[in-house]
Amino acid sequence: MSADSATGAAKVSRRRLLGWGGAGLALGVAATGGAAAAAIGVSDDPEPRLGDAVPFYGPHQAGIATPVQDRLHFAAFDVTTDDRDALVALLKEWTRAAARMTAGRPVGEGAVGGLPEAPPDDTGEALGLKPSRLTLTVGFGPTLFAKDGEDRFGLADRRPPALIDLPAFPGDDLDPARSGGDLCVQACADDPQVAVHAIRNLARIGFGKVSVRWSQLGFGKTSSTTPEAQTPRNLMGFKDGTRNISGTDTAALNEHVWVQPQDGPPWMVGGSYLVARRIAMNIETWDRAPLKEQEDIFGRTKGEGAPYGKKHEHDEPDLNALPADSHVRLAHPDSNGGARILRRGYSYTDGTDGLGRLDAGLFFLAYQRDIRRGFLPLQTRLARSDALNEYIRHVGSAVFAIPPGVRDAADWWGKELFA
Amino acid sequence: MSADSATGAAKVSRRRLLGWGGAGLALGVAATGGAAAAAIGVSDDPEPRLGDAVPFYGPHQAGIATPVQDRLHFAAFDVTTDDRDALVALLKEWTRAAARMTAGRPVGEGAVGGLPEAPPDDTGEALGLKPSRLTLTVGFGPTLFAKDGEDRFGLADRRPPALIDLPAFPGDDLDPARSGGDLCVQACADDPQVAVHAIRNLARIGFGKVSVRWSQLGFGKTSSTTPEAQTPRNLMGFKDGTRNISGTDTAALNEHVWVQPQDGPPWMVGGSYLVARRIAMNIETWDRAPLKEQEDIFGRTKGEGAPYGKKHEHDEPDLNALPADSHVRLAHPDSNGGARILRRGYSYTDGTDGLGRLDAGLFFLAYQRDIRRGFLPLQTRLARSDALNEYIRHVGSAVFAIPPGVRDAADWWGKELFA
Ligand code: HEM
Ligand code: HEM
Repeated sequence: MSADSATGAAKVSRRRLLGWGGAGLALGVAATGGAAAAAIGVSDDPEPRLGDAVPFYGPHQAGIATPVQDRLHFAAFDVTTDDRDALVALLKEWTRAAARMTAGRPVGEGAVGGLPEAPPDDTGEALGLKPSRLTLTVGFGPTLFAKDGEDRFGLADRRPPALIDLPAFPGDDLDPARSGGDLCVQACADDPQVAVHAIRNLARIGFGKVSVRWSQLGFGKTSSTTPEAQTPRNLMGFKDGTRNISGTDTAALNEHVWVQPQDGPPWMVGGSYLVARRIAMNIETWDRAPLKEQEDIFGRTKGEGAPYGKKHEHDEPDLNALPADSHVRLAHPDSNGGARILRRGYSYTDGTDGLGRLDAGLFFLAYQRDIRRGFLPLQTRLARSDALNEYIRHVGSAVFAIPPGVRDAADWWGKELFA
Repeated sequence: MSADSATGAAKVSRRRLLGWGGAGLALGVAATGGAAAAAIGVSDDPEPRLGDAVPFYGPHQAGIATPVQDRLHFAAFDVTTDDRDALVALLKEWTRAAARMTAGRPVGEGAVGGLPEAPPDDTGEALGLKPSRLTLTVGFGPTLFAKDGEDRFGLADRRPPALIDLPAFPGDDLDPARSGGDLCVQACADDPQVAVHAIRNLARIGFGKVSVRWSQLGFGKTSSTTPEAQTPRNLMGFKDGTRNISGTDTAALNEHVWVQPQDGPPWMVGGSYLVARRIAMNIETWDRAPLKEQEDIFGRTKGEGAPYGKKHEHDEPDLNALPADSHVRLAHPDSNGGARILRRGYSYTDGTDGLGRLDAGLFFLAYQRDIRRGFLPLQTRLARSDALNEYIRHVGSAVFAIPPGVRDAADWWGKELFA
């Protein structure tokens, strides 16, 4: 089964779903549902991936095990209302909008053809663009359950034990303005304009109820969840994601990524937990490090990406052949009681750091069934011993409970949490 | 003649130019020249645009009239040395590296197969990626010619009169940290990782001689210089670039973009002048403006992009049918004594503004034969009267003299300036 058919990606063009007309006149755009749109199976599209839509409804949220898209826009939100009903209404509205946007459709039918005296239903910059495999993945941060001891939404006793507050790791240099958040939305797409459009429209819909706490653009995926022609390279120039959990490996997903019935709480079954870390790289120093040192740090060659002592990228690492403080040796499941995570990070470059250097690094995203048995042991080991630490700095951090997928048009993000 | 054949884009894959081997061993990679690489005309590439390389050598620098790529990384540099010879050596090295990178090749042959005890010749993250139509366009800022009255490089009398310091326009809210620069490099490519890689390697090569003053990522082109299936939309949701100078309109380019022999100085003939403005949009306010108000501001419909009173996007605007303070009416050549510019801007989204809003807008790039007859009169009129001003804020500004193209492997950026 190919990666695409595994996710059931359907080909659908925004152009074919929209009727166009000028002069601000209302148009009879057919109100096809997201499911119907996703069922359209024919395409004359010359760029198949941009034309692909990833199904929104399902047992798990898309954007985790589904194939990794090329670009990311991630946003963490503070909820600015204390009104539980307003929050519920927002989550319903977000769900409705997400179902439409991931199918390549504007938020509302009046995107450019609504009433002239009303603001358009959609901000418009993705009109004419293809679905570009857009996925929108929502999460709930610890502070949604209770903030400074205050239980604004009556959720305090519903916080999953697996959603821990991370301890301070050695070397952490976290900026509170780039950390935390009551809610998160991960938007991934092959066209960045489509991802940015989605976040912006959710922020617009949430006006007066949520405000953007921080956001992060990622321009290059650093991991893959599907076999690809070539493993993407991170900004250190190394292939990244070689030994990642594959999105088609159901056994590994059930063991390491999806919350199982026996884990609880019930509203999280089929969901996952996300750890987001903004990790800055000292690329100027790195770029002056000798090749041998760079390779020793990972325990892999730079060109091929082969583990030391082996020939090919996908050969099984022999941990004893790797330097004791190498990243791969320390992060390997055999060094961590079998702990595994699904990595889905992106490279970032955000202008300069004010000291004449590019502000660049890895926006690390990891999904797991329980943070206590995933990121926590891994990062505890890495923070203590990883040779890579000389060249990186963790500057932002957040954790989120990722509820299961939205089942159908009557379901919405968080329905069972707020039940 | 198609847009692609007009620029002579040649299909060439990095994969086919690089021999790969693991374990850090040096490889006999054939040292094909940039010109030879660009001459390879066959490709089995399924994504033709990513496989395309834009020729580096020519009478004009690429990245101006050549087709607009999807992504941008722009960097302004301060020169930190006072040594003219060091600056000249850097410009030569940059030229050599740019010729290689734009052909889809790493900066040096020892990218991953050099001496283990030496830093690699290339940072590596673009290895295996295709040329992606990368262009690198270099410019010289006013401060290169003299800074605070100090003529560090003996260039003070060579500053072109057309490279003016812009006056303060009404409403300007410029951040010095995002303005100016002794040098600039505009990197455009269809893959952002390729554009970021190029800027980063030029910064690396310049270590100790230049430092990054500011840099800007652009994720969505907002203009086109070639007829396209559809005009891109900016973050206000409007088609942008409808009436731009076309990269194949030689007469318009010679009249409005390229410096002519009679203009002088001789070292600038075939070059151009760049105005870069970071223009923040109040997208939250914009998104709540009625459709009619949005359309009145441009004098064009949002869906089709037709000028008021006309039916189709590419119909000639009838200025009298447009509101007096509409952007298009005020920016039209007929309102400005025939002034025209070549726009080549990109949308940006840089996290949040600290007030819960996305920090987003237009990174405006305009090329012209003489700033005094291009951006200056246009922006003078717009700053005073444009209805759009309610929703935008100019927060960064820079101007650069863009020298002509590098003719061949013996030529380099600025050769005639430093002659
Ligand atoms: C800037 C920071 C980081 C960089 C540049 C980086 C880079 C890499 C590279 C190049 C590999 C080898 C290829 C592969 O199997 O993917 C790797 C593997 C891995 N990394 Fe990282 N990594 C970073 C941070 C982290 C963090 C914070 C964690 C978790 C706490 C982590 C967990 C892993 C794991 C689990 C593997 C696979 C080990 C194996 O099974 O062989 N990495 N990383
Ligand atoms: C955020 C700021 C801006 C936005 C959103 C914007 C948007 C637009 C739009 C939507 C059009 C109509 C479509 C087209 O012909 O391209 C347009 C036209 C134009 N704009 Fe802008 N623009 C901005 C700033 C500027 C600035 C600063 C200048 C120059 C100083 C400028 C010069 C022009 C010109 C020359 C035209 C074509 C007018 C014509 O010949 O019809 N724009 N702009």
